[in-house]
Amino acid sequence: MPRVTEQHREARRAQILDAARRCFVRRGFHETSMQQLLAEAGLSSGAVYGYFSSKDELIVAIAEDNISQISALLRSFADREAPGTARDLLIEVLGFIRSMHAENGFAAIALLVWSEATRNAELATRLTELMREYHDSFTRLAGTAGQPSSGLSPETAGALLTSIVVGYIARLAIVGDDATEDLSGMIAALIPDADRSGLPG
Amino acid sequence: MPRVTEQHREARRAQILDAARRCFVRRGFHETSMQQLLAEAGLSSGAVYGYFSSKDELIVAIAEDNISQISALLRSFADREAPGTARDLLIEVLGFIRSMHAENGFAAIALLVWSEATRNAELATRLTELMREYHDSFTRLAGTAGQPSSGLSPETAGALLTSIVVGYIARLAIVGDDATEDLSGMIAALIPDADRSGLPG
Repeated sequence: MPRVTEQHREARRAQILDAARRCFVRRGFHETSMQQLLAEAGLSSGAVYGYFSSKDELIVAIAEDNISQISALLRSFADREAPGTARDLLIEVLGFIRSMHAENGFAAIALLVWSEATRNAELATRLTELMREYHDSFTRLAGTAGQPSSGLSPETAGALLTSIVVGYIARLAIVGDDATEDLSGMIAALIPDADRSGLPG
Repeated sequence: MPRVTEQHREARRAQILDAARRCFVRRGFHETSMQQLLAEAGLSSGAVYGYFSSKDELIVAIAEDNISQISALLRSFADREAPGTARDLLIEVLGFIRSMHAENGFAAIALLVWSEATRNAELATRLTELMREYHDSFTRLAGTAGQPSSGLSPETAGALLTSIVVGYIARLAIVGDDATEDLSGMIAALIPDADRSGLPG
């Protein structure tokens, strides 16, 4: 047996998660059998069970992946020399969600994870933390000097911007890209001091 | 065989849908077997299959029920002699969702339906229509003379108020009643000419 390197393990893990995403988006979480998942990944059960022992572990890992990517975006935005406005962040977040949705069904997976979270405390905790993180990031940016937001308090602007993200994900998954129709008006109204370029859609 | 009256059919149908809701909230849609559903309803398979021939028909009927209730609320609000403000409507909608969620897991069912809608065109169409209905109702009310909304255009206020409803449902299902924490600030900011009494939470 060749020694399995960390890099190889990571690539294999990603291969399994990608296959799981495709199956879950196509058929749903519970309708996907482990058998179908193995076929999609082109792997033996031994190869997969070395990484994930159940579908529940797979959905948690996929949720964790999605959440980490959004968290990383929020943190990297805050850590920049010139972090930009709440509007810039919202445009980056929505643009990221939109491109990931085109790539791997990100928004559909999100709805599936939200629904599972009503019966899975681990998922619920992570999603609650993520919503708090969105809220805090937007609130912080909306409160930055020189970023007026239509007379809203930063806290309220943060809550509204978070609602926009949640609403966007739901509409992107269900309605498709038409979901973007009202975005520029909403964003301009909340953060009126910026132009409208760069919006997804 | 006694003649089955329309009233009896309606009651039996409601009994089946109530049992299905309880099962779906507790276990999820796909993890609920028809066997468990029959046990929960206390009915034979013959009694249930006379109304619904599959779980898919059940989830569509439940979604249809939820959507009709919200639609009826939106229409009855518009038809009143003195229909009130967009804020009044939002408070009624959120209060209704909250009490239905306490009663039968309304918000959890909504997430389940949203997730199913990504693979069920019938559900997706109905949800898209409902979002349009929310949006139009809020936009119409936000545009009524004497209902200023913080300088937002009625269309934009309508889109933001719709986002608040979607975000509220997701947070109510996942986080629970803490989800109401930011509501009064958001509503007051969008429709600042009203006091804050009557908010759920």
